[in-house]
Amino acid sequence: MSARTLLVDVHTHLYLPRYASLLRSRASVPMIRSRADGDRLIILDNEPSGGRPVGSQYWDRDQKLAFMDKHGIDISIVSTANPWLDFLSVSEATSMANSLNQDLEEYCSSGPSFSPTLQRLYGMGLLPLVPSISVPTILDEVDHVAQLPHLRGVIMGTRGIGKGLDDDALEPVWSKISDKGLVIFLHPHYGVSSSDVWGEKDNGHVLPLALGFPFETTVATTRMILAGVFDRHPSLKILLAHSGGALPILSSRLASCITHDPVVASRLQHDARWYLGKLYYDAVAYGAEELGFVSSTIGRAGKYGTPTTEAVAGSSHMTFGTDHPFFPPILDAVKQDSKWMSVVENLKAIDGVRDWSEAEKSAVRGQNALKLFGLN
Amino acid sequence: MSARTLLVDVHTHLYLPRYASLLRSRASVPMIRSRADGDRLIILDNEPSGGRPVGSQYWDRDQKLAFMDKHGIDISIVSTANPWLDFLSVSEATSMANSLNQDLEEYCSSGPSFSPTLQRLYGMGLLPLVPSISVPTILDEVDHVAQLPHLRGVIMGTRGIGKGLDDDALEPVWSKISDKGLVIFLHPHYGVSSSDVWGEKDNGHVLPLALGFPFETTVATTRMILAGVFDRHPSLKILLAHSGGALPILSSRLASCITHDPVVASRLQHDARWYLGKLYYDAVAYGAEELGFVSSTIGRAGKYGTPTTEAVAGSSHMTFGTDHPFFPPILDAVKQDSKWMSVVENLKAIDGVRDWSEAEKSAVRGQNALKLFGLN
Repeated sequence: MSARTLLVDVHTHLYLPRYASLLRSRASVPMIRSRADGDRLIILDNEPSGGRPVGSQYWDRDQKLAFMDKHGIDISIVSTANPWLDFLSVSEATSMANSLNQDLEEYCSSGPSFSPTLQRLYGMGLLPLVPSISVPTILDEVDHVAQLPHLRGVIMGTRGIGKGLDDDALEPVWSKISDKGLVIFLHPHYGVSSSDVWGEKDNGHVLPLALGFPFETTVATTRMILAGVFDRHPSLKILLAHSGGALPILSSRLASCITHDPVVASRLQHDARWYLGKLYYDAVAYGAEELGFVSSTIGRAGKYGTPTTEAVAGSSHMTFGTDHPFFPPILDAVKQDSKWMSVVENLKAIDGVRDWSEAEKSAVRGQNALKLFGLN
Repeated sequence: MSARTLLVDVHTHLYLPRYASLLRSRASVPMIRSRADGDRLIILDNEPSGGRPVGSQYWDRDQKLAFMDKHGIDISIVSTANPWLDFLSVSEATSMANSLNQDLEEYCSSGPSFSPTLQRLYGMGLLPLVPSISVPTILDEVDHVAQLPHLRGVIMGTRGIGKGLDDDALEPVWSKISDKGLVIFLHPHYGVSSSDVWGEKDNGHVLPLALGFPFETTVATTRMILAGVFDRHPSLKILLAHSGGALPILSSRLASCITHDPVVASRLQHDARWYLGKLYYDAVAYGAEELGFVSSTIGRAGKYGTPTTEAVAGSSHMTFGTDHPFFPPILDAVKQDSKWMSVVENLKAIDGVRDWSEAEKSAVRGQNALKLFGLN
């Protein structure tokens, strides 16, 4: 298969069987609850509609591969879906991280090959990021992930070890992840709001998913910028879920607010917009104009450097994703026969970006991900 | 002065003397507190840095006009800054709304003329939007505002009468505002987060202002879309602060989440992206790429209609603003002599939008606002 048609999915989730069993064993959120009309996944407090239908598409590798085949996806970099290990004790999280990373390595390495040198499945592992854990324990698990040949990064929520990702205690974690060349996939789970912000109307999952999720990613990344994490760790490779949420559209406002606030005005090495060029973004925004705009904020970052730094092509930091197995078609008839609209829309969006050449679009579909994850 | 150079500021605030006195009389937030080093405005719970310096730039009309002159602003549509009347009792809010609207009419009408037919100052009034108020009392104040010739709209926060702007009880308010042709300026105050979402680091006002404010506008507008407000009131003219916050960048994700949620999938008359073409946006985003992107989401809205509706030029729904007297220069030396960077950046952003013709840029600076507010 030529590089032109390569399709790599960097945003695709699973619950490994060990993790699904854990969710089944629980009586509080997060949990899987058996119902007469099928099992339900309940991962949010006050989950609307009694939770989401959940089934083997979350843990069965054959179903992942069938989904990939249906949509022409050659390689997937799979990651555990939220809420990861956040709800576990220190000892449970430590042990589960270790076991699940081993499981994921096995899931990938025993799967089909794409080429003589590449598998079809790679993974991002988990770290035991829970309150009260010792940082050396986290570092041990980074080492473990780095030793597993099919794991190329870690997926991470926004709470860190209880104080968020701008916590000074995480400095050794950023250093080691950076040293090992692992990618961090920064992914939301909690939103940023108490549920009363969403109001009293029944809007299903729309508000927390469409707005709360990207807000959370935006806040977490901004706090890392403000804390100087990217000044101290210039080689850190962070992939932002959902095309960086609202960070790109708010980045000039952020720069202005920083400039006008005596508390932070002189703290950073660069204008806030510069840091957007250091980050990576999945292309999961469902619209061509959105992707083009995100690309432009990456591309303009260099001119906000001190001194001005070389511009990167915005597209080079963007990579196709699906969010599978979330966003399934809601009509059963469609589910059987057709491609998923969520996937079709993201592919159409890439194809429709006015300012991207065909070579750039092709790279967003595949080669950029191989490069980011060290698979090329 | 030719239409080419006309500059109209739709996002410019004040605290009328009557309102400033109210803030001075209070011992809890919102309040103005006298300090040895100058008065401080405290409008947020847990206000960072002991509040913002506040002085006559907030209430002195001469200072507003001097600011306008310094920056070449011909006409300002002024509005009371947050938090408006939100903290008052029903009777206080009713009485203050009436008096402040009368004060604002006087502030505008007794000010200088711009031309034989236009003043330099127009205003947006206040409604007594507080919990437990009777809707007819609100409607009376809409009538009052509509009778005051220099008031052309109302500024509004996001809480409505306690349940947000998707509250069915507000239906008669939308009807009357729409009938009277008044503009609603939707403006944030609360953010969407409990302060712990911003973390423990001292980042001044940056996080609530740069992120919380636009998130709040985004949530409020989305809730109105989901409640069908724009389906039922197609003539309602809503101007969104800060270029609509994160709504444009999240609008395709919003559409996807709606399509994939059984609770809301069939509720709306149109794809979520269609509604963005019904809205108006200030050009207060501090970057050319941002403005160009917002414009593209307005311009594409028509193709998401059912049936497809005629496209509007995105720029035609966007209007210059400054956010004065917020975002002052932080260096005193600069303050004396130079233009405000916040204003210069917003003008430069308009000038830099790649896809706007010179005529469109000119219209964003002035004529679009005159048209929106019925001044042309």
